[in-house]
Amino acid sequence: MNIRFYNARIMTMKAGCEISEGELWVKDNRICYVGDSDTVKPAAPPWDRQIDCEGNLLMPGFKNGHTHSGMTVFRSLCDDYNLQDWLNQEIFPREAKMTGEDCYTLTKLAVLEYLTSGITAIGDMYLTPETIADACIHTGMRCVLVSGLNKFGPALSVMEDRYNQLNKKHPLITYQMGIHAEYTCSRELLEEVSALIRKYKAPFYSHMSETKAEVDECMGRYGITPAKLFEELGLLEFGGCVYHGVHVTPEDIAILKKHDISVITNPASNAKLASGIAPIGEYLKAGVNVGIGTDGASSNNCLDMFREMFLTTALAKLKENDPAAVDALKVLRMATVNGALSMGLTECDVLEEGKLADIIMIDLHQPNMQPLNNIAKNIVYSGSKTNIKMTMIDGKILYENGQFADSLIPEDIYLASNDILERLR
Amino acid sequence: MNIRFYNARIMTMKAGCEISEGELWVKDNRICYVGDSDTVKPAAPPWDRQIDCEGNLLMPGFKNGHTHSGMTVFRSLCDDYNLQDWLNQEIFPREAKMTGEDCYTLTKLAVLEYLTSGITAIGDMYLTPETIADACIHTGMRCVLVSGLNKFGPALSVMEDRYNQLNKKHPLITYQMGIHAEYTCSRELLEEVSALIRKYKAPFYSHMSETKAEVDECMGRYGITPAKLFEELGLLEFGGCVYHGVHVTPEDIAILKKHDISVITNPASNAKLASGIAPIGEYLKAGVNVGIGTDGASSNNCLDMFREMFLTTALAKLKENDPAAVDALKVLRMATVNGALSMGLTECDVLEEGKLADIIMIDLHQPNMQPLNNIAKNIVYSGSKTNIKMTMIDGKILYENGQFADSLIPEDIYLASNDILERLR
Repeated sequence: MNIRFYNARIMTMKAGCEISEGELWVKDNRICYVGDSDTVKPAAPPWDRQIDCEGNLLMPGFKNGHTHSGMTVFRSLCDDYNLQDWLNQEIFPREAKMTGEDCYTLTKLAVLEYLTSGITAIGDMYLTPETIADACIHTGMRCVLVSGLNKFGPALSVMEDRYNQLNKKHPLITYQMGIHAEYTCSRELLEEVSALIRKYKAPFYSHMSETKAEVDECMGRYGITPAKLFEELGLLEFGGCVYHGVHVTPEDIAILKKHDISVITNPASNAKLASGIAPIGEYLKAGVNVGIGTDGASSNNCLDMFREMFLTTALAKLKENDPAAVDALKVLRMATVNGALSMGLTECDVLEEGKLADIIMIDLHQPNMQPLNNIAKNIVYSGSKTNIKMTMIDGKILYENGQFADSLIPEDIYLASNDILERLR
Repeated sequence: MNIRFYNARIMTMKAGCEISEGELWVKDNRICYVGDSDTVKPAAPPWDRQIDCEGNLLMPGFKNGHTHSGMTVFRSLCDDYNLQDWLNQEIFPREAKMTGEDCYTLTKLAVLEYLTSGITAIGDMYLTPETIADACIHTGMRCVLVSGLNKFGPALSVMEDRYNQLNKKHPLITYQMGIHAEYTCSRELLEEVSALIRKYKAPFYSHMSETKAEVDECMGRYGITPAKLFEELGLLEFGGCVYHGVHVTPEDIAILKKHDISVITNPASNAKLASGIAPIGEYLKAGVNVGIGTDGASSNNCLDMFREMFLTTALAKLKENDPAAVDALKVLRMATVNGALSMGLTECDVLEEGKLADIIMIDLHQPNMQPLNNIAKNIVYSGSKTNIKMTMIDGKILYENGQFADSLIPEDIYLASNDILERLR
């Protein structure tokens, strides 16, 4: 489809959060023009659709840097636990009964929710990457699958096979090697993963330092923090990304910076599980790339980038006892450009000619966006899912004016999800 | 209008958060039947509308216990300040230029936003109660106007006149006496207010102990906390409500309980201004009635009860380092029944025959509400404004399927608000 958006405000996110007026053209799955309406433009393709944006804002879609989409079935099923009890008593036993088909359906449910929140790419670590990939391809979601390898499985060779196969499967899908977390891996396994990482010169992904207990246990086992352990084992040699990073030392932060490791913060999940508040201000001061994730629908319990964005700034202000801490514009970059970088998705990070067309339209004709004093701040400090007027991924409009694309049948997905709930409850 | 809702899930909030299936009838502005579809019912009035709820949930509207509606013009205009700098440098000078007409328009903008969030009553403390009342009457919002008397004005006699006049003005409007805060009143003024409170045996409303600095200053002036000072001056004799209550002692909490004083917590505002986290768990343990407020759109910056509900539980879990702290069901009561009690609105607190018809419909056919394991928890932990399918106040549907009632013209209100912004910027 070739689509012309006109009468638009445009925030490219190429530098800062400046907003201009003009139009944006999409040819197939890429942006072929961004600019004002009057200057000389490239030859216009024949339009399949021309959309009057009515002054609403086009911006890059939000990048959900860390999630477990298949956990939608656990929403409101196992709340009010700490991380370890929640995992061991509630989640792991139920996940043992979950099939690849379940994971397919539950990921589709998550994708519907992502679309309503303007999320155009996810970093997804969950049980069956093959069916997660299928669900994302079927729904049109861009997805970076992340290995959650641990001592319960799968075999290291499975991860290597997936790395080689899933990266060739579909343009929407990439696959990254990694582990669930230090505390679910033996030292031997970590060493094997490290060898594989170095064989492929691949980035490394993992949960890290989510709770104080986890860090204390690692210190007990190895006498060093998870970040230091990862570094010593050579896991960080080719960059990558760690999730949570709540309980870190200044040395940990320096290690992450040194190896160009991104951090994905998951503020709602960390609050709901009483894990703590990540030191976002410290990461930013050290120059670490920080993105934002929703985590799964069991620990959060929603998959909404607006809530995460407000929490990122609000919790930083509380933690630092400073109302100027981690302001709205920094958060907006985290939720877009920085998140894209953390997942290696630099082809869809900003609105620019040649980039992939992962675009959202923010409805400014809503009371929470008025008056139009500072739109970028409005998005972070007062935005909500009601402001997502359109979500486009790879040039396809998947959600528009509250309706999903015809290929997505929400009621079917709801029914199937409730059936799975009955089985796993 | 006589409206029959059928094929509904219903959460009356009369006790706990149980949900039943059935129908609900509204005759004029009151509920005349709540129950299942099969039992013998009172004689049905002739219906103006019969609404198939398609299994969606009816529940009492949210009660926004504390706000300053007219501050919508300051949204994203003065962020990243602490409370005192924000008030003195940014807000007070601009408010000095605000007219009653401005306040009327800006309150209407806020009401639009409340409706999108399922808020059916507000406790509003702002500059010109007369025009706030007009805005609420015109838009159909139920409003408890609260005096924000302070040493800069108005005269005590103005508050007394308003108490006598505004309480007779319109069934949607009540007026309560009170002050802005201890730190903006002289001792003499507090004593005069106390005399008036006692003359009318009226409840007392005020900001209280929002920041540590405010409490420290009060200790410096009087040697006691604001709560203790209010008690000693007789201000708490007939109940009432204090806003924020972030920095309180165990003795303060006991004082509030002793005098049946409600507390309205404003978690987003307290976080954004880095004021702190209110000890909600301690209040609840002491038996204090706690409701929830958005505060104004300058310190928050949005007027969204879903965000406040999640923050109330999430921040309590962080503060108490306990993932079980202040769970979803407690929060849902705060946002409805407790908030109503704090404002003296016990005629519209639950869904019951004879009660005023302040009702919202929660859209369960949205991905963030699926699967339907625990709907009450879903509302608090994963709900959002996208789930507000209908907002009814006093028997009138003011917002439905994303559209406002015909009497409300959003674009006109947006235009007028932007004009005011240009003048006050």
